[in-house]
Amino acid sequence: MVLLSGGLDSATTLAIAKAEGYLTYALSFRYGQRHAAELDAARAVAARLGVARHEIASIDLRAFGGSALTADIPVPENRSAEEIGTGIPITYVPARNTIFLAFALAWCEVLGAADMFIGVNVMDYSGYPDCRPEFIRAFESLASLATRAGVESGVRFRIHTPLQQLTKAAIIRRGMELGVDYALTLSCYAPDAAGRPCGRCDACLLRRRGFAEAGIPDPAAGRASGIEAGKPGTS
Amino acid sequence: MVLLSGGLDSATTLAIAKAEGYLTYALSFRYGQRHAAELDAARAVAARLGVARHEIASIDLRAFGGSALTADIPVPENRSAEEIGTGIPITYVPARNTIFLAFALAWCEVLGAADMFIGVNVMDYSGYPDCRPEFIRAFESLASLATRAGVESGVRFRIHTPLQQLTKAAIIRRGMELGVDYALTLSCYAPDAAGRPCGRCDACLLRRRGFAEAGIPDPAAGRASGIEAGKPGTS
Repeated sequence: MVLLSGGLDSATTLAIAKAEGYLTYALSFRYGQRHAAELDAARAVAARLGVARHEIASIDLRAFGGSALTADIPVPENRSAEEIGTGIPITYVPARNTIFLAFALAWCEVLGAADMFIGVNVMDYSGYPDCRPEFIRAFESLASLATRAGVESGVRFRIHTPLQQLTKAAIIRRGMELGVDYALTLSCYAPDAAGRPCGRCDACLLRRRGFAEAGIPDPAAGRASGIEAGKPGTS
Repeated sequence: MVLLSGGLDSATTLAIAKAEGYLTYALSFRYGQRHAAELDAARAVAARLGVARHEIASIDLRAFGGSALTADIPVPENRSAEEIGTGIPITYVPARNTIFLAFALAWCEVLGAADMFIGVNVMDYSGYPDCRPEFIRAFESLASLATRAGVESGVRFRIHTPLQQLTKAAIIRRGMELGVDYALTLSCYAPDAAGRPCGRCDACLLRRRGFAEAGIPDPAAGRASGIEAGKPGTS
């Protein structure tokens, strides 16, 4: 069970799960995010990499508000690496990974699956509480207590975080080895109506720096509205 | 933050939270259940008891299937107390309370609340893994790790289960003391199109026995399609 957002990290995570030999199911969410274009990216990634099934679950987080990704709060732009690395950003969606993993757990239980994959990584730890290893371990413990499979059959759920210790550049290199087509992925928090990345939000900046550090041109860069095509890969 | 299904237990839980002095927010779910009439009951209960706000979050569990409450599987009827008390029933919805509490946690975080109330009780433990005290404690631990409030401000989330050790009869007596109008509540897993309880599912049977044991007529019994009006209270 792979949580698939349509971004660079989750696409790589799906490719890793497949490379490890798992029959993969991909789960995405329509959660009131402003950038629904990421769902098109998720569909394209799931189709290209090949999954047994891809589900998009509709959930409504807008009713609660509280995040720049779901409420009417501006997405921060052009922040430095230091700013991005400090504190919990306004793009944090309250309890999002708890909700996503809860849905993944529900589907796992119906399918009889025990392995979940989520693309959290070290870049996120400083900012998002629900990307930290201690959160992941706590959810694993909860999962076995929460389910029929855990209680009746002693199934131990495992949450795989293969990107956990990888920088963005290392993730990109690993994905390229596995044949991930990053042209299909969308990392931006605030794409335009045509689904083109803004080039200025934290996610765009981290992606640009990752490709630059990996020394690989971003194949999606030509799609960008706010950055010059090809520029990220030339540095 | 009170999880409110529109049933007897959650209505009583809401009344207890209010009696304990909490400003209450009620959260219900449209989760593809076959008995959406319970949402009408939840609205009526929230309005009568008075809450600061009542939200109904739409989530789609039907995509996953796997339960008689969300998939096309018959709801068991006329089971004995022993049958009801054995094993995990088909009406178990995979990971449901994990999902419900995850949403409650998200809304808590936006509101700055740290107290959640859920009407799980000893009658459920034998059957539903996610009603057991060890599950509740595991979610409490998770909540503090999962959230900005937990990480930045050291907020400890607490999940209150005031019905935990109460039988159905004791719950009803407590609710009557607090002025809960049980005529507004709906406990049935398979009500008819008019929202009338079937009188034969586990939930109807547990409710009927609870009122009988409490020696109180069920004020909603007149609404029943499958049981004689007033009968539950006369035994």
